[in-house]
Amino acid sequence: MSVFGVFKCGNAAELTYYGLHALQHRGQEGCGICTTNGMELYRERGEGLVIEIFNEKKLTQLKGDCAIGHVRYSSAGGGVDNVEPFLFRHHTGDFSIALNGSLVNSNQLQMSLETQGSIFQSSSDAEIIAHLMKMNRIKDKTNAIEEVLTMIEGAYAFLILTKDKLYACRDANGLQPLSIGKRNGGYIVASETCAFEAVGATFVRDVNPGEMVIFEKGADPKSILFADKSSHKMCAMELVYFARPDSEIEGVNVHTFRKNCGKYLARLAPVEADLVMGVPDSSISGAIGYAEESGIPYEIGLIKNKYIGRTFIQPSQELREKGVRLKLSPVRSLITGKRVVLLDDSIVRGTTCKRIVRMLKSAGAKEVHVRICCPPMPHPCFYGVDTSAREELVSARLDVEGVRQMIEADSLFYLPEEYLRKAGNETGLCLACYNGEYPTRLY
Amino acid sequence: MSVFGVFKCGNAAELTYYGLHALQHRGQEGCGICTTNGMELYRERGEGLVIEIFNEKKLTQLKGDCAIGHVRYSSAGGGVDNVEPFLFRHHTGDFSIALNGSLVNSNQLQMSLETQGSIFQSSSDAEIIAHLMKMNRIKDKTNAIEEVLTMIEGAYAFLILTKDKLYACRDANGLQPLSIGKRNGGYIVASETCAFEAVGATFVRDVNPGEMVIFEKGADPKSILFADKSSHKMCAMELVYFARPDSEIEGVNVHTFRKNCGKYLARLAPVEADLVMGVPDSSISGAIGYAEESGIPYEIGLIKNKYIGRTFIQPSQELREKGVRLKLSPVRSLITGKRVVLLDDSIVRGTTCKRIVRMLKSAGAKEVHVRICCPPMPHPCFYGVDTSAREELVSARLDVEGVRQMIEADSLFYLPEEYLRKAGNETGLCLACYNGEYPTRLY
Amino acid sequence: MSVFGVFKCGNAAELTYYGLHALQHRGQEGCGICTTNGMELYRERGEGLVIEIFNEKKLTQLKGDCAIGHVRYSSAGGGVDNVEPFLFRHHTGDFSIALNGSLVNSNQLQMSLETQGSIFQSSSDAEIIAHLMKMNRIKDKTNAIEEVLTMIEGAYAFLILTKDKLYACRDANGLQPLSIGKRNGGYIVASETCAFEAVGATFVRDVNPGEMVIFEKGADPKSILFADKSSHKMCAMELVYFARPDSEIEGVNVHTFRKNCGKYLARLAPVEADLVMGVPDSSISGAIGYAEESGIPYEIGLIKNKYIGRTFIQPSQELREKGVRLKLSPVRSLITGKRVVLLDDSIVRGTTCKRIVRMLKSAGAKEVHVRICCPPMPHPCFYGVDTSAREELVSARLDVEGVRQMIEADSLFYLPEEYLRKAGNETGLCLACYNGEYPTRLY
Amino acid sequence: MSVFGVFKCGNAAELTYYGLHALQHRGQEGCGICTTNGMELYRERGEGLVIEIFNEKKLTQLKGDCAIGHVRYSSAGGGVDNVEPFLFRHHTGDFSIALNGSLVNSNQLQMSLETQGSIFQSSSDAEIIAHLMKMNRIKDKTNAIEEVLTMIEGAYAFLILTKDKLYACRDANGLQPLSIGKRNGGYIVASETCAFEAVGATFVRDVNPGEMVIFEKGADPKSILFADKSSHKMCAMELVYFARPDSEIEGVNVHTFRKNCGKYLARLAPVEADLVMGVPDSSISGAIGYAEESGIPYEIGLIKNKYIGRTFIQPSQELREKGVRLKLSPVRSLITGKRVVLLDDSIVRGTTCKRIVRMLKSAGAKEVHVRICCPPMPHPCFYGVDTSAREELVSARLDVEGVRQMIEADSLFYLPEEYLRKAGNETGLCLACYNGEYPTRLY
Repeated sequence: MSVFGVFKCGNAAELTYYGLHALQHRGQEGCGICTTNGMELYRERGEGLVIEIFNEKKLTQLKGDCAIGHVRYSSAGGGVDNVEPFLFRHHTGDFSIALNGSLVNSNQLQMSLETQGSIFQSSSDAEIIAHLMKMNRIKDKTNAIEEVLTMIEGAYAFLILTKDKLYACRDANGLQPLSIGKRNGGYIVASETCAFEAVGATFVRDVNPGEMVIFEKGADPKSILFADKSSHKMCAMELVYFARPDSEIEGVNVHTFRKNCGKYLARLAPVEADLVMGVPDSSISGAIGYAEESGIPYEIGLIKNKYIGRTFIQPSQELREKGVRLKLSPVRSLITGKRVVLLDDSIVRGTTCKRIVRMLKSAGAKEVHVRICCPPMPHPCFYGVDTSAREELVSARLDVEGVRQMIEADSLFYLPEEYLRKAGNETGLCLACYNGEYPTRLY
Repeated sequence: MSVFGVFKCGNAAELTYYGLHALQHRGQEGCGICTTNGMELYRERGEGLVIEIFNEKKLTQLKGDCAIGHVRYSSAGGGVDNVEPFLFRHHTGDFSIALNGSLVNSNQLQMSLETQGSIFQSSSDAEIIAHLMKMNRIKDKTNAIEEVLTMIEGAYAFLILTKDKLYACRDANGLQPLSIGKRNGGYIVASETCAFEAVGATFVRDVNPGEMVIFEKGADPKSILFADKSSHKMCAMELVYFARPDSEIEGVNVHTFRKNCGKYLARLAPVEADLVMGVPDSSISGAIGYAEESGIPYEIGLIKNKYIGRTFIQPSQELREKGVRLKLSPVRSLITGKRVVLLDDSIVRGTTCKRIVRMLKSAGAKEVHVRICCPPMPHPCFYGVDTSAREELVSARLDVEGVRQMIEADSLFYLPEEYLRKAGNETGLCLACYNGEYPTRLY
Repeated sequence: MSVFGVFKCGNAAELTYYGLHALQHRGQEGCGICTTNGMELYRERGEGLVIEIFNEKKLTQLKGDCAIGHVRYSSAGGGVDNVEPFLFRHHTGDFSIALNGSLVNSNQLQMSLETQGSIFQSSSDAEIIAHLMKMNRIKDKTNAIEEVLTMIEGAYAFLILTKDKLYACRDANGLQPLSIGKRNGGYIVASETCAFEAVGATFVRDVNPGEMVIFEKGADPKSILFADKSSHKMCAMELVYFARPDSEIEGVNVHTFRKNCGKYLARLAPVEADLVMGVPDSSISGAIGYAEESGIPYEIGLIKNKYIGRTFIQPSQELREKGVRLKLSPVRSLITGKRVVLLDDSIVRGTTCKRIVRMLKSAGAKEVHVRICCPPMPHPCFYGVDTSAREELVSARLDVEGVRQMIEADSLFYLPEEYLRKAGNETGLCLACYNGEYPTRLY
Repeated sequence: MSVFGVFKCGNAAELTYYGLHALQHRGQEGCGICTTNGMELYRERGEGLVIEIFNEKKLTQLKGDCAIGHVRYSSAGGGVDNVEPFLFRHHTGDFSIALNGSLVNSNQLQMSLETQGSIFQSSSDAEIIAHLMKMNRIKDKTNAIEEVLTMIEGAYAFLILTKDKLYACRDANGLQPLSIGKRNGGYIVASETCAFEAVGATFVRDVNPGEMVIFEKGADPKSILFADKSSHKMCAMELVYFARPDSEIEGVNVHTFRKNCGKYLARLAPVEADLVMGVPDSSISGAIGYAEESGIPYEIGLIKNKYIGRTFIQPSQELREKGVRLKLSPVRSLITGKRVVLLDDSIVRGTTCKRIVRMLKSAGAKEVHVRICCPPMPHPCFYGVDTSAREELVSARLDVEGVRQMIEADSLFYLPEEYLRKAGNETGLCLACYNGEYPTRLY
């Protein structure tokens, strides 16, 4: 998931369109844009890619120089009703909300709200935030949001748009990223900095953990720190897996982080081999780092088909068994008879990694040595990463040797936690899925 | 453009769907599939990507175990009427045709056919081949196609499907690629071998220059050599630019070819620099080769947005000037203050290369050294590559130093012809766009 | 607008599809269906005709043997967010609501709800009813709805679907129609009886004014009378204009009602003429009655194009002035040189009637005598009929002679109120738009 | 099927859009428009209704002040490739063709053309005409068309559009209608005059049997009579069934014709009954005539759902048996206990009529007396009317009493041929399907 906001930048809808397009890797299920021209809020949303949902006519109807947008990832609770931004009508002023992340106390909050008379039309935590704002009966929106921020817990970054203000809020541990950019006297807010480059904006700073930034006409952005105590615990998987290589997260360039992980793996787990390759796209940087450090040539041994869409017809079981492949292809002539080092970002259930090892072996690889750019993940994530079911986590069941056998690799090595931290310049990271140290309460 | 054929392989439509998807990089404008169950020919086509045009219902309606398919590249002569395969109804038997390439004597042939009473409903050379087949009044289709092959000149690979046969023809110079694969007792024919991997087929051999291969039930494939003299003059730009890195063309792996080009460039035109990068996607392999040979680190300095579609809304001139970017983004933190070696596959008009050099410099690059994976291209191509207008070719107007100034690079070096040949294992290549030696007559 | 409900009848989604299709004349802007299989509620909706929004795949996903559906009329507050049925999620049980009609105290209720913390996502009164149900904090849904029914005032007929019950409620004056039918042991509820014929159901009875009928598994439908006092004040315009001729409303067949109106007009306002015609479709029955009574031949003098859709391209002003016509065509050869009696259902602003009179005269009519099947309408409707703006009502400004001149007719006669009542068999009708006697409070 | 042409009338595409919309009752399967601005021909087509296929953007791209259009009826040879106008490219000048009708010697012509080298891409006779034009190798298009007109036989009306001319041709017997209208100094040509009213044109005259009219800039329309002998043998079913009631065909108003048929039926086959009704839409006029003549009241006893589309989901067999109805509904309260006279236009297979009689009886009709507005049809039509299979014609198998029993009517009467002629003012009609006297050779 991802949010993108525009404050006072000419055609806000069009900029949001390009910004969301740059953030599309964070969610392909649905997307939406809500704009305001200071008088009305306009909203358009749908299920599909940004380039599928919006056209010039729709962008023209989204009037104004302020906007928020969203791309949606999870298939949990599908349907267009769950596509953000949500738009709420109220006599004290309409408002719109877009959320990246997940509240850990959402069940408690929703039950309490329902008991007080709220009814819900979606399964998104963003609707909870909206109800909380109204249930407080605080007329001033800034105060109302401040009050809400004391009630919600979890990993979140959300934007609220009213007719005259844009609010950007980030959770007290900074679990979810949120950055501020500048463009022609106006402001851009985005989950990832790669979106700044797409719209010609320049990076200013990150929203701090536990900070709400208020953008208001004729005034400098105003910062409110709402958390009693805050910490830097950015989700490590953002660096390892989610983010685009050209983004800076907490001051760390994602490509460089991943390349460093690869270098450490080469030092810690060297192996005699003929070539290094990575699972595209997230493990390419790691493979390049491994190759550079080890002197083993880097090769493009796996090709990912880039013409992707939501409506792809899946090959039947029979065709899959006969080798029909949708997304990944091995480059047979590079692989046959070779000893391969395969970099992968992480192992969740182990099934994908096993499929790739088999694919390489059936393409003739003599040996496949798997190097993983993060530690084993035995602990579920409660902050939005889709690895919540403990029984699905192969590292909750098996030790490293067990996983190696399961994925049929000739060797397997995970990057230890300390090197992950080192690759991230010792910036504060949430490593809960590796070590079980959750930065928030759990419910 | 690209063709794909299936002979006697279970659900031919579905295999063609996956095969065309793997060939999608060769044409995104339109696509079509024609199948036969031995009794009828079924055809479906449309403007857009394979995953946009076909759905399960349409695939179900395309009955039979034989098929041909096509993806269309050129925007010249658009409209669904120009999307192949074409389907022709005739009392001697219906047939369908799909063509990759371009005839050099198409104007002469079409005029002659029209004078004899033919009328045309498209602007594709495939329709000329169909008219020639019929104008000869030879009832037997094999003889009719043989006769046609003596009349047409140019760079082509085409497939013809009848109720009981599949014909695969390649021009006398082998300018266009065409390969045969095997799958479960049936056959696959494709413009690029990467499609074999996608459908679980294994490579058998290339169709030879000047060869027609006939697939017929209950018999081995039959080969007919139709050309007085043939030669191996495969289009060099296939290796340099068009093909997917995982394809083998004339026995050469495309990724390895490109990596070798990069290595030669590193030897011939070394430079002191901090990092090497390539223009995605076609120049990545070259950049890796340059980095490996030179010892300068390879970095992902340019990111290409992979969520692409035909209906993308282009940013306005004003937004483009303010830095709104659709496809390519520079990774600012890697580039700022650095000396960059930039690998690009080729320079046609020079405008794209200039735009990228400027983008890197505006992202802070101290120096940009451009290395091109082929020689200068002062000569137009008459075989289907879209560089036909001489005035557009910057190398027809300017020498290397002139181009360097035009693209605002700090240095510029083109790979000499002999090294291109070496990278391709001295396989016969058409180098006409570099040296003006056209392997066919020109009209 | 119109509602349709199914209780325990096999494939409820499919029946609702056919039922809504039969009710399509009551609203073409949007439509939706919500079903339940006793465990989950499923909902699908969209902007457009029933046949445009639903396909077999969508109907299959709407599981269960109970359903409610809606077709939407008004363009006020457009967008798919306003298309019913609405679906609300709540820990005490999800529910769905579809409403035909309009509350007169909606502003008061919404303000009060918002003050208590409710937020609204649509501009439909159905959302108010849902919030009221929850705000009461009465856990039992039946009691909650009963409580709501004492709070809302206006003209309404609504359906509420829960996992195990279907509620059908009609306002205390019976301003909006709602009927119950039987089908194979299950029940159908619909705004108009023509929908019963479409799904093979038979009419049982009308829901009474001020009655809530509860359909529950394993029990007979249960009736609760919620109003202190109730009356029969069905909207007369239902009979005059909205309903399909094959419906029975309050025991009166719509076609027969309209034919009777025409007969009375023939008796009360005879004229020497050559032919009688009606404005299609709602005034055809009246014209037939006038012709039958007067002995003047009935002719099809105006043809309505039946291929209609939401996306029709409107002719430009220039083309309209040059006679380009979208919907209605005069039959020139019948009209030229003739004295015409033209039946129309009603006159609201007078512009349509004037355009038709002009059309007939320009097609050669010597005289046009207009006969209106109801009295003049000087009073706005507050119950959902789209004539609310007083300044638009031509009869609020002009007397009969004034209207005659304005519409350029040779004579004009309105059916007096008493004859309208007689045509409706003296059933209780709301005649407020004619005589200003509103059956509810106004706010 | 239907053709529509515009010559020198401002925005030709838009007028054709409205004209085809008025002709939509003649074909709902597909439609297309081809225009010219004197330099290029532009064409757009698709499967569906006019309002579905065209939008403002597409109309804008169809430039020029001349156009031809087509609506397609038959499902024989479906697919967009069979949707006209066809567009042919030729060095002597591109041209487009749209045809209403059917050639009787099409098989012979196509075989001869194929033997000479033609290949066909559709199954429409229009493509044959195009090939004949070119096969003649006559450079001048007027001469080429004249030559073609001596070769083709059948029932046809076709339009050919070149960059500077519009040709309108009608077969020698005038089996298919074609009329000329005037508009602002330009011309309109249409299969039915109702299209003139839609675009603000006025009727000038019919194209004569065996006439080609040539519209050319700066000259009066030129008439060429191409047939040795011609006759007036307009298809009687146009008047009986196909045409819209507001059209004039061969000087006869369609509604009046049908009303007269009804009157004759009342005189020839009176019956004691309570009400008269007609099967909508084509038999309404006949029923009104019967009622007027007999004094029995006319009632709207059958309602046709007007929200129709190509993609309607058909009710399952089970639902149909349980009374789910898609299109026609009986008005139960009018029918129960009544003796009904039912007017229908014709009886082909008898199945539809039987279904309606049963529907009326199950709605309570005491007696159903069927009156048919034309004679029995024992002979197949070879001119395009979809009754070609002899075994399907119930009157080829059964006499009148046999048909009466088959359709379960209480009485049945067909209008004799002489009265059909009388109703049509003794204009020359093709009555071949009634009497077997075919006006052309048959092959």
